[in-house]
Amino acid sequence: MCLTLDDVKIAARGLFEYETPKYVVIKNNVVGTINFTIQLTILLYTAFYALWWERGYQETEVPVSAVTTKLKGIEYTNISSVGPRIWDVAEYVVPPLEKDAFFLMTNMVVTPNQKLGKCDEDPEVAPCKRDSDCSAGQTTFGSNGVMTGRCIPSSRNSSMTSCEVFAWCPVENDVPLLKGRPVLPGVENCTVLIKNYIVFPKFGVRRRTIPEDYAEKHLKTCRWNKDEEKYCPTFRIGDIINSIGENFTELAYKGGVININIQWDCNLDYDPKYCLPLFTMRRVDEKTDIAPGLNFRHAYHYVEHGQPARTLIKAWGIRFVITVSGKGGKFSIAPTLRNIGAGLALMAMASVVCDIVLRIWYRSSFEKEKYNEAKIMRLECC
Amino acid sequence: MCLTLDDVKIAARGLFEYETPKYVVIKNNVVGTINFTIQLTILLYTAFYALWWERGYQETEVPVSAVTTKLKGIEYTNISSVGPRIWDVAEYVVPPLEKDAFFLMTNMVVTPNQKLGKCDEDPEVAPCKRDSDCSAGQTTFGSNGVMTGRCIPSSRNSSMTSCEVFAWCPVENDVPLLKGRPVLPGVENCTVLIKNYIVFPKFGVRRRTIPEDYAEKHLKTCRWNKDEEKYCPTFRIGDIINSIGENFTELAYKGGVININIQWDCNLDYDPKYCLPLFTMRRVDEKTDIAPGLNFRHAYHYVEHGQPARTLIKAWGIRFVITVSGKGGKFSIAPTLRNIGAGLALMAMASVVCDIVLRIWYRSSFEKEKYNEAKIMRLECC
Amino acid sequence: MCLTLDDVKIAARGLFEYETPKYVVIKNNVVGTINFTIQLTILLYTAFYALWWERGYQETEVPVSAVTTKLKGIEYTNISSVGPRIWDVAEYVVPPLEKDAFFLMTNMVVTPNQKLGKCDEDPEVAPCKRDSDCSAGQTTFGSNGVMTGRCIPSSRNSSMTSCEVFAWCPVENDVPLLKGRPVLPGVENCTVLIKNYIVFPKFGVRRRTIPEDYAEKHLKTCRWNKDEEKYCPTFRIGDIINSIGENFTELAYKGGVININIQWDCNLDYDPKYCLPLFTMRRVDEKTDIAPGLNFRHAYHYVEHGQPARTLIKAWGIRFVITVSGKGGKFSIAPTLRNIGAGLALMAMASVVCDIVLRIWYRSSFEKEKYNEAKIMRLECC
Repeated sequence: MCLTLDDVKIAARGLFEYETPKYVVIKNNVVGTINFTIQLTILLYTAFYALWWERGYQETEVPVSAVTTKLKGIEYTNISSVGPRIWDVAEYVVPPLEKDAFFLMTNMVVTPNQKLGKCDEDPEVAPCKRDSDCSAGQTTFGSNGVMTGRCIPSSRNSSMTSCEVFAWCPVENDVPLLKGRPVLPGVENCTVLIKNYIVFPKFGVRRRTIPEDYAEKHLKTCRWNKDEEKYCPTFRIGDIINSIGENFTELAYKGGVININIQWDCNLDYDPKYCLPLFTMRRVDEKTDIAPGLNFRHAYHYVEHGQPARTLIKAWGIRFVITVSGKGGKFSIAPTLRNIGAGLALMAMASVVCDIVLRIWYRSSFEKEKYNEAKIMRLECC
Repeated sequence: MCLTLDDVKIAARGLFEYETPKYVVIKNNVVGTINFTIQLTILLYTAFYALWWERGYQETEVPVSAVTTKLKGIEYTNISSVGPRIWDVAEYVVPPLEKDAFFLMTNMVVTPNQKLGKCDEDPEVAPCKRDSDCSAGQTTFGSNGVMTGRCIPSSRNSSMTSCEVFAWCPVENDVPLLKGRPVLPGVENCTVLIKNYIVFPKFGVRRRTIPEDYAEKHLKTCRWNKDEEKYCPTFRIGDIINSIGENFTELAYKGGVININIQWDCNLDYDPKYCLPLFTMRRVDEKTDIAPGLNFRHAYHYVEHGQPARTLIKAWGIRFVITVSGKGGKFSIAPTLRNIGAGLALMAMASVVCDIVLRIWYRSSFEKEKYNEAKIMRLECC
Repeated sequence: MCLTLDDVKIAARGLFEYETPKYVVIKNNVVGTINFTIQLTILLYTAFYALWWERGYQETEVPVSAVTTKLKGIEYTNISSVGPRIWDVAEYVVPPLEKDAFFLMTNMVVTPNQKLGKCDEDPEVAPCKRDSDCSAGQTTFGSNGVMTGRCIPSSRNSSMTSCEVFAWCPVENDVPLLKGRPVLPGVENCTVLIKNYIVFPKFGVRRRTIPEDYAEKHLKTCRWNKDEEKYCPTFRIGDIINSIGENFTELAYKGGVININIQWDCNLDYDPKYCLPLFTMRRVDEKTDIAPGLNFRHAYHYVEHGQPARTLIKAWGIRFVITVSGKGGKFSIAPTLRNIGAGLALMAMASVVCDIVLRIWYRSSFEKEKYNEAKIMRLECC
């Protein structure tokens, strides 16, 4: 189908002519009102919701983001079985650096000075009466080592016996140091400075959580709170937990996961200085009976007297996961047209509905004929 | 262009009138069939695919998610050059806590008790015949230290000489402990409990990978498998690797990366209890000759006799990266209308196609005139 | 509203008939040109921008991705207060393994051999004149321990006195080792091999940053650069920093965050071998006076003479965060139709605009009547 001179003529004629459909106007209050209502609704929806409220006239971009955190706080404990201890960030932040997250150890079982060797297993894990209860080379569920085949007195409870194992000795005594309370309740008073830098590459806008209008002194002393200090990027751990209605002691004892979301919803048609973060917190894990909380084991390895040794720590704690969401938008013609187009497409719905109503209305009536005659013209040319 | 009384009258008239295009009906089997087929296709596509299958009638939301993992398993090795050793999670999970990922060390080269000082370099890296082969202060590709300028006998192979270096001594002997087999084959039997909590904030729905109807006992003993136990959140490492057709020994020897995807495709028009996770695994790295597998070096630092010392470990292993995808959907009027609108917009395509077909059909024929006369009315008013 | 025989007949008639709107053609240069221009613009926008440029004819998929990094490089320092030291990856990469990120320590304050006990606090943090200046059991902002209530001579500066604290002793002297320069300037010469594997599951395509046509030897020696070697996956740290116009010394001294984005924009209608990564770097944090740079504290724990001890390190450094973006696209009928439909919907905009123009044009003129008469047919049937 190649272009002929005729086609060019027709195209040229397009410049001088305007083709518009011929309309039949039907006087019918019901159908008229339906049509008017649907069209008005679509118009309002497109103009106010899709275009204005949802900012459909803007091209949007998701920010490139980087989060770094800086924790501060020191705690002194004096538990009888452990002695006095000082806990600073190098002690309770494990691992020391994470991407968009940090873990605060609040409760623990420490088993210092473990060495490879033979010792008695936890009597709850591998109780025994005689050597034949301990099959050499086997491990049981939750055991700390491999059985040697001997049944020996437990070092933990002199009235009991348990299987001897080859393991990191002595084996861990998996019982919390304090009943119902965390070892490090002072973590509640620690603070975290969340530095979040975002870039909208297409729009060339950079923003960060540290407000420009904060003096260095105010930045050091301010503490985030939902109302007056909602842009202060320094958070007291206890404040975060209270603001979401959780109980610190319970959370710190069993462990948990909290999400801190930083939302940047930026209308870049205005000055970028109005593009400000919104912090929202939420507990993500569930208080449940089955496998609750959060804990993991890690060890510090060293060598003593030429022998490998380690300090095993089972750590419970609060994990903070920082997510960055939101988008920046700036006026652009393409999305505006796309939304207007979508609105116009919806307009066709009014006709579809009205045509159906009319067909029902005029069904088996004398006016059906009249309507059809006016609306439709039959051409039996070919 | 301000509103006049006339405009208001016209708008008011909209309530009593319905404007509908006047149609010309053309009897033409071919065009009629084309028109009917296209319209039916679009109708079916919109109704069944866009609306029903893709759930276009629903407003959707991506979940906020948190993943924590709990590894279990113990392994005993007795390699002649190392002696008996016990490996628990604190040994083979490096680092102990990661966000949405965990690394299981399966193979390694351990260089214990390194101290800062002078020693012979690996003969493969810095072979020499005489002192002048070792230029003081230089490093070569892959070297472990800085040359002192002396050529000394190798401590590793008495028949060879190599450059002396200032380094952490003795330098690492980068040769796998066992040929073609991993040092820790037992990692295959380790298990991981994946606790994934998701929240759909807008819909107020919370879900997790631990099934509500599992008793604590069943949760402890069940092991995920593709068919009968597809909702059990505890995975045996070997099962994961087998289910994707990989060979554990090979993967453990060279290292690799496996993605575990948790998909939550939730139709929240139903009871949230039907919102269940789908676990899919996939090996992400490639078996290749160039730079295959996954390994990295880390060290345990300590002090012996007042001197800094370290145990250097080159670790190969399997890295599991957990991703959470999916979305929740609930009926909402706005997306429904948007999809219907898009469908109606497509309907216009039928007319476009048919008009083109008609123009070709009637081309240079006598009926063209007749068609145009019926369809188009010329108004030469202005 | 159930189907009658009539409805079936009407549906059947659809196969033989084609309904097309009757048009009124208005000769009006202005409106004709407006109509033609709008329609042409929409046609060009749909065809060239939405369909061709934005590849609107393709179904797209976001890749599943895994990133592993391999760092190489060794550095020798000889700072008078520390003595000669060798730094390899196990020293300056902290933590040794991260997901999609790595941190290179470039500057530090090392406090070796800290033990729990009593010692003098930093005189800047807790200066004192007499014991009463040090309230026992209290901590001050930035302090390292809990005051014992005594005021003692500072071990750091014999002419000063400071509060005695229970802390990890000796307390850290938070002053950079070298003024204005990083301790490890040689990190500039380190290299990182970025192995990024992506999978498009739906399209069954796998790609990676290691080019297939690179020999192993070339892979080992090539270094990425913006122009000739833009596909080489090995980056010299200094090259990355220079390519974004940053100053290594400054960045290394204070610390910073750099984003390396790997973009895979793949047209999978062509051979997948043309699907190649684009590396772009960007500094994400801001040079600012308030809380600049990036640093964190971590410690190596060990036991000496049966007592817990640690080496505390305050580390400044450059954090590299690797992100993977992009999408793969392949021709598919559904998105093509969706885009054509959107284009057709926009076409309706031409009529809307022209109708408005016509109403203004014919406003209060004699031709208005004539136009209305031709265009609109009143049916007062009911």
